[in-house]
Amino acid sequence: MPKGQPLTVPDDGLTTKQRRNQPLVMVHTGPGKGKSTAAFGLALRGWNAGFRIGVFQFVKSAKWRIGEQAVLERLGQLHEETGEGGPVEWHKMGSGWSWRRKAGSEDDHAADAAEGWAEIRRRLAAQTHDLYVLDEFTYPLKWGWVDVEEVVATLAERPGKQHVVITGRDADPRLVAAADLVTEMGKTKHPMDAGQKGQRGIEW
Amino acid sequence: MPKGQPLTVPDDGLTTKQRRNQPLVMVHTGPGKGKSTAAFGLALRGWNAGFRIGVFQFVKSAKWRIGEQAVLERLGQLHEETGEGGPVEWHKMGSGWSWRRKAGSEDDHAADAAEGWAEIRRRLAAQTHDLYVLDEFTYPLKWGWVDVEEVVATLAERPGKQHVVITGRDADPRLVAAADLVTEMGKTKHPMDAGQKGQRGIEW
Repeated sequence: MPKGQPLTVPDDGLTTKQRRNQPLVMVHTGPGKGKSTAAFGLALRGWNAGFRIGVFQFVKSAKWRIGEQAVLERLGQLHEETGEGGPVEWHKMGSGWSWRRKAGSEDDHAADAAEGWAEIRRRLAAQTHDLYVLDEFTYPLKWGWVDVEEVVATLAERPGKQHVVITGRDADPRLVAAADLVTEMGKTKHPMDAGQKGQRGIEW
Repeated sequence: MPKGQPLTVPDDGLTTKQRRNQPLVMVHTGPGKGKSTAAFGLALRGWNAGFRIGVFQFVKSAKWRIGEQAVLERLGQLHEETGEGGPVEWHKMGSGWSWRRKAGSEDDHAADAAEGWAEIRRRLAAQTHDLYVLDEFTYPLKWGWVDVEEVVATLAERPGKQHVVITGRDADPRLVAAADLVTEMGKTKHPMDAGQKGQRGIEW
């Protein structure tokens, strides 16, 4: 991290404080590791700042990120018990979104993804969370299950001070253009290339 | 993340389980954001797996990563109280390494960095931690305060199953060559370029 001094000061009529407090859209993309891990690290930091954290996993398997989920939900529980940090909600497509009355159709991932986005849109309108982690959300966008233009417009119009971080490979250029911060994780070397499988505590 | 299937299976005489359990040296480098955040996300996951976490911050200012430190130390406290997760130690150069009897010389960062590395070497020999986060450690290497060849040799010879993650820009090519996993965080877009300063919950 640089020292925190901006390289330029824009002529936008905002004070430093106003500019500092602008809500951000962040995208972690690219073929390398660390996209989701960095997003959950951000959730950790946000929790400590009292943010209301909402995680939405757009993955089929409910087993992903089980370590992060355990810790963040434990932190959410701590918040309820002691008031420390902020509340945490963790929703995943793979086990049927938890706000639904009935289970999602097991086969229709496109409908599940669209339902996930519809709920996020409702929550953005209601200002439910301070930080949204949309994990692996680039894939339903890539596959056309959720409309990129609509996502970009919804993010642009979201009220209040809501931060959004989106992870996944192949982020759409329109999403990249709309984001305030984009980090491309490049794969330089990965143990799976050398035939290693994932291991507990490192991969999940 | 890919599905977890290795692309190749090496002819190294190891079983999948032996290969899976190999200790890793991981490097997060490049000019983009997320290097340290992903390392602390990894610590979160390791904590959940019961790893003994040791964080060593090679930075001058003691104010860095204050959010991550608060949460990880809170998790370490939870471990002491309830047995959940693993123990956490957080040491920083900026406030004088805590294992020292007397405060470090305020001006001699090179000596402070060398002392930090000497302690890590002792701990690696003693197998004190399961995951070492050496935050911003590429800088003392770059500036010649700590010898790269000695670090590479020490890491190669470390006993047991100790994972090490090293963050910072401009990782030395010898360190990259010695690492099992290297992720290059590329900066595509950063709000500081548009004149925004850091904000609580996002930058710290």
